[in-house]
Amino acid sequence: MNETDIIERFFQRPCTDPAVTRHIGDDSAVLTPTDGTQLVVTTDAMVEEHHFVSQSPAHAIGYKLMAVNVSDLAAMGATPRWATLSLTLPSIDEDWLTSFSRGLFECADHYHVELVGGDLSAGKQYTMSVQLIGEIAHGKALLRNSAQPDDAIYISGEIGHAGAALSKLAQAAYDHTVLNECEMKALYYPPAQVQLGQGLCHLAHACIDISDGLLHELDSICRQSQCGAEINLEHITTSCELEPLEAIVQGDDYQLLFTARADQHTHIEQLAQRLGLAVCRIGQMTQHPQLVIKQHGRVMPTPERHGYDHFSPA
Amino acid sequence: MNETDIIERFFQRPCTDPAVTRHIGDDSAVLTPTDGTQLVVTTDAMVEEHHFVSQSPAHAIGYKLMAVNVSDLAAMGATPRWATLSLTLPSIDEDWLTSFSRGLFECADHYHVELVGGDLSAGKQYTMSVQLIGEIAHGKALLRNSAQPDDAIYISGEIGHAGAALSKLAQAAYDHTVLNECEMKALYYPPAQVQLGQGLCHLAHACIDISDGLLHELDSICRQSQCGAEINLEHITTSCELEPLEAIVQGDDYQLLFTARADQHTHIEQLAQRLGLAVCRIGQMTQHPQLVIKQHGRVMPTPERHGYDHFSPA
Repeated sequence: MNETDIIERFFQRPCTDPAVTRHIGDDSAVLTPTDGTQLVVTTDAMVEEHHFVSQSPAHAIGYKLMAVNVSDLAAMGATPRWATLSLTLPSIDEDWLTSFSRGLFECADHYHVELVGGDLSAGKQYTMSVQLIGEIAHGKALLRNSAQPDDAIYISGEIGHAGAALSKLAQAAYDHTVLNECEMKALYYPPAQVQLGQGLCHLAHACIDISDGLLHELDSICRQSQCGAEINLEHITTSCELEPLEAIVQGDDYQLLFTARADQHTHIEQLAQRLGLAVCRIGQMTQHPQLVIKQHGRVMPTPERHGYDHFSPA
Repeated sequence: MNETDIIERFFQRPCTDPAVTRHIGDDSAVLTPTDGTQLVVTTDAMVEEHHFVSQSPAHAIGYKLMAVNVSDLAAMGATPRWATLSLTLPSIDEDWLTSFSRGLFECADHYHVELVGGDLSAGKQYTMSVQLIGEIAHGKALLRNSAQPDDAIYISGEIGHAGAALSKLAQAAYDHTVLNECEMKALYYPPAQVQLGQGLCHLAHACIDISDGLLHELDSICRQSQCGAEINLEHITTSCELEPLEAIVQGDDYQLLFTARADQHTHIEQLAQRLGLAVCRIGQMTQHPQLVIKQHGRVMPTPERHGYDHFSPA
């Protein structure tokens, strides 16, 4: 099987999006953006032994690769549209390619994303990146640098489940049968909060997706918005096996962390209810540029490690 | 040094493109496409030991990574605009990062491309991909599937130099000092024919960039356009050390291969002259779906291997 065979067999499908004039099979794809929109563009990669292990199911790897990119667009309030895939393979494993491409397309279909191009290479380990282009009405993108002092801080859903699943896997020598359905879903099939992000465009000030740990992301909002933040650990309720202080420094949650004026609270609750989502108020932004963690009114020591970093010792 | 440090130190620069509302530093970049244009999107990756060797100069790797993507847009006749970078590093080598990022930006600046986002991971070997978005007037993109029987076939520039340089390097155990300036330039600093592509939008039928070998690319035009082609080896003049029959199955040339109605010949020559480029007529498209190679009127056996394939034995 050569490059062309692999692309045609596993990645090329008829294209149903009328905005796509040309997709996989030419030097580049040709796309027609919607009038009056801005483009929102992101890229996220996954590398074997760093983002997943060789025992990870290929279907799940494909699904998650697309989902983490969709999540970055969700955090801007954008609508995902078109993706390209860059894939490095250590060998041609047809079963792996079948499962991987099915997982990738399952996620793409769920979020109405069209795969319009890509590139295939040989390499020492599985390495893959997706670039995703979305659209948003002019000037409506949710940014990290727009939080205000006194904004309320919210998170969607529950955090910590993926982190808990990872610890469990490490203890079980990466035997995936130890994971229950909820842990498997949190780790490999994270929901990207696209509809929540779109609804927040008119309600929130700043927004970010929690990929590298809540504390890490909150720190990013603080630094970029030149504010501080105070969070209350007892408001971070999670059914996972981690303590809140552990859960806020794990990553891979793909929930949204956002800030909004306190008087938007009712609207935010209504939006969450309409989407069938839990949204939790966990603290507020402050003037003084500092991260303060409280539990039942007492100030806790801030963990030195705020979240996941590829190049720092664990 | 952590991820954020590496990004800020080597990849984040002030952005001068007024179309870029938000670049590196948020979940996604926010861009404003030009009214009335279509997007042209491509991605190309480079993997250590497959696209370059550890002895390759980092500056050259960075330059070429951007150039090969620009070349894909050139083959569509598009104007390159915005790039994202996905980079996997085996370790943090500050000298390597300094040279690599300088090379990448040198090429980006040359073609007026803005780096708007990216992703950094750790991995076993250097693996990198750029995704590039360009623009083109509606319906003007040059495709691979629009060649007509009786079209004349052209190539720009000279082919074979990068292939010759690679053979020389392999013989010298990858000691780069054996390469002269012309070979170094062909292998690592290939010119992307953006202006030629733009000019050809009104003159050519089909176009492709020669990344995997002339014969391989011509075969792609033939299959997608449901035609055949006849080329004359004696018209492929090259100052490189390879015979024409070898040069047409090497890759990495990044010249344009295109077809046009015979009566456009004068316009094509004028365009080439204006750009100071050699453009060579090497054959014509045919009705019968077959690739025929002739030398001084005699039919030559067609090489079994049409060009470079990552997953086929060399």
